Amino acid sequence: MSYTYKRLDKDDVALLLVDHQAGLLSLVRDFNPDEFKNNVLAVADIAKYFNIPAILTTSFEDGPNGPMVPELKEAFPDAAYIPRPGQINAWDNEDFVKAVKDTGKKQLLIAGVVTEVCVAFPALSALEEGYEVFVVTDASGTFNQTTRDAAWDRMSQAGAQLMSWFGVASELHRDWRNDIEGFGGILGGHLPAYANLIQSRTSAEKG
Amino acid sequence: MSYTYKRLDKDDVALLLVDHQAGLLSLVRDFNPDEFKNNVLAVADIAKYFNIPAILTTSFEDGPNGPMVPELKEAFPDAAYIPRPGQINAWDNEDFVKAVKDTGKKQLLIAGVVTEVCVAFPALSALEEGYEVFVVTDASGTFNQTTRDAAWDRMSQAGAQLMSWFGVASELHRDWRNDIEGFGGILGGHLPAYANLIQSRTSAEKG
Amino acid sequence: MSYTYKRLDKDDVALLLVDHQAGLLSLVRDFNPDEFKNNVLAVADIAKYFNIPAILTTSFEDGPNGPMVPELKEAFPDAAYIPRPGQINAWDNEDFVKAVKDTGKKQLLIAGVVTEVCVAFPALSALEEGYEVFVVTDASGTFNQTTRDAAWDRMSQAGAQLMSWFGVASELHRDWRNDIEGFGGILGGHLPAYANLIQSRTSAEKG
Amino acid sequence: MSYTYKRLDKDDVALLLVDHQAGLLSLVRDFNPDEFKNNVLAVADIAKYFNIPAILTTSFEDGPNGPMVPELKEAFPDAAYIPRPGQINAWDNEDFVKAVKDTGKKQLLIAGVVTEVCVAFPALSALEEGYEVFVVTDASGTFNQTTRDAAWDRMSQAGAQLMSWFGVASELHRDWRNDIEGFGGILGGHLPAYANLIQSRTSAEKG
Amino acid sequence: MSYTYKRLDKDDVALLLVDHQAGLLSLVRDFNPDEFKNNVLAVADIAKYFNIPAILTTSFEDGPNGPMVPELKEAFPDAAYIPRPGQINAWDNEDFVKAVKDTGKKQLLIAGVVTEVCVAFPALSALEEGYEVFVVTDASGTFNQTTRDAAWDRMSQAGAQLMSWFGVASELHRDWRNDIEGFGGILGGHLPAYANLIQSRTSAEKG
Amino acid sequence: MSYTYKRLDKDDVALLLVDHQAGLLSLVRDFNPDEFKNNVLAVADIAKYFNIPAILTTSFEDGPNGPMVPELKEAFPDAAYIPRPGQINAWDNEDFVKAVKDTGKKQLLIAGVVTEVCVAFPALSALEEGYEVFVVTDASGTFNQTTRDAAWDRMSQAGAQLMSWFGVASELHRDWRNDIEGFGGILGGHLPAYANLIQSRTSAEKG
Amino acid sequence: MSYTYKRLDKDDVALLLVDHQAGLLSLVRDFNPDEFKNNVLAVADIAKYFNIPAILTTSFEDGPNGPMVPELKEAFPDAAYIPRPGQINAWDNEDFVKAVKDTGKKQLLIAGVVTEVCVAFPALSALEEGYEVFVVTDASGTFNQTTRDAAWDRMSQAGAQLMSWFGVASELHRDWRNDIEGFGGILGGHLPAYANLIQSRTSAEKG
Amino acid sequence: MSYTYKRLDKDDVALLLVDHQAGLLSLVRDFNPDEFKNNVLAVADIAKYFNIPAILTTSFEDGPNGPMVPELKEAFPDAAYIPRPGQINAWDNEDFVKAVKDTGKKQLLIAGVVTEVCVAFPALSALEEGYEVFVVTDASGTFNQTTRDAAWDRMSQAGAQLMSWFGVASELHRDWRNDIEGFGGILGGHLPAYANLIQSRTSAEKG
Repeated sequence: MSYTYKRLDKDDVALLLVDHQAGLLSLVRDFNPDEFKNNVLAVADIAKYFNIPAILTTSFEDGPNGPMVPELKEAFPDAAYIPRPGQINAWDNEDFVKAVKDTGKKQLLIAGVVTEVCVAFPALSALEEGYEVFVVTDASGTFNQTTRDAAWDRMSQAGAQLMSWFGVASELHRDWRNDIEGFGGILGGHLPAYANLIQSRTSAEKG
Repeated sequence: MSYTYKRLDKDDVALLLVDHQAGLLSLVRDFNPDEFKNNVLAVADIAKYFNIPAILTTSFEDGPNGPMVPELKEAFPDAAYIPRPGQINAWDNEDFVKAVKDTGKKQLLIAGVVTEVCVAFPALSALEEGYEVFVVTDASGTFNQTTRDAAWDRMSQAGAQLMSWFGVASELHRDWRNDIEGFGGILGGHLPAYANLIQSRTSAEKG
Repeated sequence: MSYTYKRLDKDDVALLLVDHQAGLLSLVRDFNPDEFKNNVLAVADIAKYFNIPAILTTSFEDGPNGPMVPELKEAFPDAAYIPRPGQINAWDNEDFVKAVKDTGKKQLLIAGVVTEVCVAFPALSALEEGYEVFVVTDASGTFNQTTRDAAWDRMSQAGAQLMSWFGVASELHRDWRNDIEGFGGILGGHLPAYANLIQSRTSAEKG
Repeated sequence: MSYTYKRLDKDDVALLLVDHQAGLLSLVRDFNPDEFKNNVLAVADIAKYFNIPAILTTSFEDGPNGPMVPELKEAFPDAAYIPRPGQINAWDNEDFVKAVKDTGKKQLLIAGVVTEVCVAFPALSALEEGYEVFVVTDASGTFNQTTRDAAWDRMSQAGAQLMSWFGVASELHRDWRNDIEGFGGILGGHLPAYANLIQSRTSAEKG
Repeated sequence: MSYTYKRLDKDDVALLLVDHQAGLLSLVRDFNPDEFKNNVLAVADIAKYFNIPAILTTSFEDGPNGPMVPELKEAFPDAAYIPRPGQINAWDNEDFVKAVKDTGKKQLLIAGVVTEVCVAFPALSALEEGYEVFVVTDASGTFNQTTRDAAWDRMSQAGAQLMSWFGVASELHRDWRNDIEGFGGILGGHLPAYANLIQSRTSAEKG
Repeated sequence: MSYTYKRLDKDDVALLLVDHQAGLLSLVRDFNPDEFKNNVLAVADIAKYFNIPAILTTSFEDGPNGPMVPELKEAFPDAAYIPRPGQINAWDNEDFVKAVKDTGKKQLLIAGVVTEVCVAFPALSALEEGYEVFVVTDASGTFNQTTRDAAWDRMSQAGAQLMSWFGVASELHRDWRNDIEGFGGILGGHLPAYANLIQSRTSAEKG
Repeated sequence: MSYTYKRLDKDDVALLLVDHQAGLLSLVRDFNPDEFKNNVLAVADIAKYFNIPAILTTSFEDGPNGPMVPELKEAFPDAAYIPRPGQINAWDNEDFVKAVKDTGKKQLLIAGVVTEVCVAFPALSALEEGYEVFVVTDASGTFNQTTRDAAWDRMSQAGAQLMSWFGVASELHRDWRNDIEGFGGILGGHLPAYANLIQSRTSAEKG
Repeated sequence: MSYTYKRLDKDDVALLLVDHQAGLLSLVRDFNPDEFKNNVLAVADIAKYFNIPAILTTSFEDGPNGPMVPELKEAFPDAAYIPRPGQINAWDNEDFVKAVKDTGKKQLLIAGVVTEVCVAFPALSALEEGYEVFVVTDASGTFNQTTRDAAWDRMSQAGAQLMSWFGVASELHRDWRNDIEGFGGILGGHLPAYANLIQSRTSAEKG
């Protein structure tokens, strides 16, 4: 009954950003808004930093769900962008699945709003097709913690790995020596406490 | 070790509403009463919307447990209604099991009060008989969160899938295009934040 | 240093509903949405029941703040309705103050969104002008509990009385014998736990 | 601006138990039921121990509010018992006020359900009449902590002193030497952690 | 991959009460003391009611851990009582294991203090020996919720079933008709909210 | 006993930013870091927007307390900047008091780290000297909520008004018509939920 | 209505440590034990550092309340030590009051267990006699947060100032230049996060 | 499907302390600092007591992460100490893996900062290589509880056992008779509540 560590590999992973839309975001209440915005933008910065192919998708942009938040669109100007005409599970949309397959990656990082639907449904579909699925839990939001707990359990029992954006960044980077400045910049930009450490250090060294 | 996504199918699922009785509801304290009432009625609306056969059951209506809440009886006037003479596990009642089997469905959505008894017991019995079991966690209530956590763990480890009413609705609907108005109506009726989105949208479009 | 109990008097009180607008409501996170919607509608029902004059006001309906929620407009079709062209403190709007003064009441019940601005500002202004101010705390929402705590403290120190909708209803009604059915109806309609008590009682009496 | 310590005096205090009724208790959710039951019974034991006159009152016993819990009736078989025909504020009932005045005490301990109505209203009325009012906060329950916070603030600002049953017992007893066994018995009976201390001590002394 | 519902059977289960000692109880902080005392005594009442053989054990009674709480000793005057001379895992004590085996039962209900040691260790040992293990989670206490979460996870992953005393009672009783009065008495004695339901019902019926 | 509404006046207020230093910020745990950073920067943006004179001060920059966070120094390049050589209460530093007096304002907005020291001490000193003091509670942080609650109570009882950055901004602006774009920009920049409202609105209007 | 800042003065303050006894400490549950122990010892270190006269008192050392914790006795070997024979309010003990008066100080710092009795009673008595009273809230513990909230309110309304040990230390020290090393040592010894700052700084300076 | 209890064996276990560095510790917010410091030092004391080989490792000591906390370095002066030049997953560092293998143990206790990276990554790597992995959950810290929950789930699903330092100590010691004094000393030193029990006991025995 041996265990294989399915480890994020920057060369074999794609990022799926599902339904981070202005209207839907008003439903998210398991994170406070400042924290959640920061987490989502951190994921975007990570994907860009590691040149991970991203696929963006939305549902009903022209209705109450609203448009995808502009920061994400701007972060990935060349990414596949799939406004779904109606499918709730992004995996039910052929264009979306094709875009995933076209990346040629076997690992999928998924974040979205709301967790138990926009994240869980494609996560379970992708697991069924044999992908290794990693949920960015803190860039995925929903109505409350009870709903989140249930969604996490369903995905975890199906074999998805639950991670945080910081864990994702660290598992992808592997070694600080690959680029100290760049990686430190991501941490400093999204972890105020880490930025303070950097600043205190710099100040002391100048001291 | 492949994974199969057991996905709710509106044509192959039945809903079991177990012991949502006026007395027993006073025991529920892992949700506030407004939220819990809304969640339970949302499940009822979902089942009606998708024409999912419902089975209602109660224990000891004539004692302190009290009568089933009238909203549920009214929602399903033609549903099987099984007041159990004594069995705590609804699955120990032959009429109840027969009603389940008569639906011919292999998926069961279960909600009830209290979670670790009225939901967990029939859920485990149904799993043993090979049904796919989906617990509507936020329409199932109990004494406190500690008790709930233990009950969820027991059911999850046995193979039940933990869901929320919103996840259930979304997994059943599959595609907004099947009926935008109707589905939006359910969301708007049970998610005040979504109703606000709709209203803001409408107002803006009118300009 | 004697104390005078400033007690709500249904014949000497007006209700101010400030900025319960569809957009602004998405900012409220110190209550869950089901609970908050219920609380606000309970206040509306109470005012109607006791024939308390209501004054409704909004800020920037045509912008992101959105329109006042339709339930409130429908509840008070004949109430003074003052869409403020820009004043943040409703009391800075002459029409609003005139509407308040026209009621001829010396007690003001205030509820609104968000608490530290739309409620606190007119509450403090009204206190300065000698009104007795009662804040309906659970029909007033804001960003988080920290913000709320500060707002409550500011208003309480200024002399406002902090109440809940249930306390308001009870202090206004004074005596069940004034109308058992009507008052019980309000409680049953907005307190699911009380509705369950009524139902259990009725069931037992039929028993 | 000198301060006078209004201190509970066992010879000058009466206890008011307001609406601890079986139905209303199902509304209490700012304490868990085990804890609240213990707190209320502790107050009863304290009053009996110190021979403090108690006045019991209920509202609408014959309706959904239900009967007063039997433990309290049994604890005070000879106490004034005033089932109010309709008055929500017990102080609006002449018999109740007469019973209070007949005790000849100037201090009033008040506990009841729910806090913002059944406790706060008579507390404010009594303060207005010049009584020293002490609220037994942990034997008074209500719908949730938000409601409680508002009710506490209103009473505190009016001059009521907020206490707990343990504080009440200790302030009344003044000196352990008055009766070590009896007072220790009350603590041991209502504080499991104190009972454990007694038992550990006894065991250790036996060696 | 079929699932078998391992269901508590009153004729095939023994109860292990591990280290509910006066000193150790002062360490328990994941429940408030009133609630925890009630839960433990509920388990005792359940075992007595169903004539389930109980085994009581303690560690170092003569030291700081203190004596077993007297209520448990009194509840089971004829039970096997095994004061362990030093073994931390009760299963390392031959007398204890012998007592378990002498019951001839294949199901074990375990409760104890503290959860991650006194409950988890014998639970894992018993699972290894093929017993079906049911943890009474709310009659087992420890230092804080973090510690509890880890302990629950370890036991659950090993195959123990996490239950609550109410779930245990209900799964054992199976059918109210086996004895309505007796079972109702246990519920009423340990669930104040259920006692209130009974009382309200009785009162209404007398009406 | 009339009440005077001491209302923030943009022409008569100065802002004191006390000890937001990189090291000290690591002590703040009553807010999460993302939220706190946002709140502090919001205060800075507000002061700049309204041309409120700011005074920045630090304690022991060259030691573990670390340098003031660069964003604040950059926000107020021309502000009085007073690195205190040792005084813990900024008001004990003559240069600081002089800078305050030089502003000629009678209202002081204070934010700092940690709340019970760096905010409370100068707040109490300023109150003693007759200033109107407004604490920006959500831009002031400390070790935990217990410490914060005590600090708030001390300042409130002394006459300081507890506010949030959003309340401050709104009370200063008074009327949206003074500048819709600018004020909306501050809200959108620091309230992700408000930015979403703006974006949804814009999108809908384009429709 | 001018305000006077009653500020801790190291030359005019005495410390009262009331009933920090081994048994009573097991009742404290509004702090976790590690945190509370640290807070109490921090107060002791502060008093020693500033040569503040301390008065220690206990109730019933020979019973379940247990002995005063040894760290406090050792910290103040020459302090007045008053084991009260029975008085619950330390101020009812003549020796205690004499010890307080003998210090000749007009300010009193009080910490104790439990807050609503052992702290609140002498605090209110001392206020009545004209002392300036400062409660060290985080070195004072009780059964739960509800009880604490009520106790804090009672003391605050009577005029006591609520502080934390860190606030006390800082208000006493006034200026780092009085002794950087010594004061930093107290902070480092009782604030792990501050110790980390010191260590990081030292490390960086060494480079 | 038999279960094997993988039980900590003091003769077959090594301890990995990963990145408890002064800077990184400022990121930990799922424990309060006093509690976390105590937990980490408890683990160190346990390892020393049982002569368990420890391996200490750090990442980027010379940058913002800061130096390892001195208490740990002092606790294990002869332990393997591996400052990693860049690898984020300690298991990617050959010296670290060699040090682990050199211990010849098959069980690994891991604690570190932050949980989802510095603990989870080597834990998963070690599981893949066939080690039995035990996470000391309460000596491992991270940004918040959400992040922790995800990290625990990932490790638990991979087969790691989640423990607490107290569980670790107890499972290693097995039998109090191996050394009552020494083991009691560890408990008393790191569990204030247990120290109080010891002291009360001793006091009582002296009588």
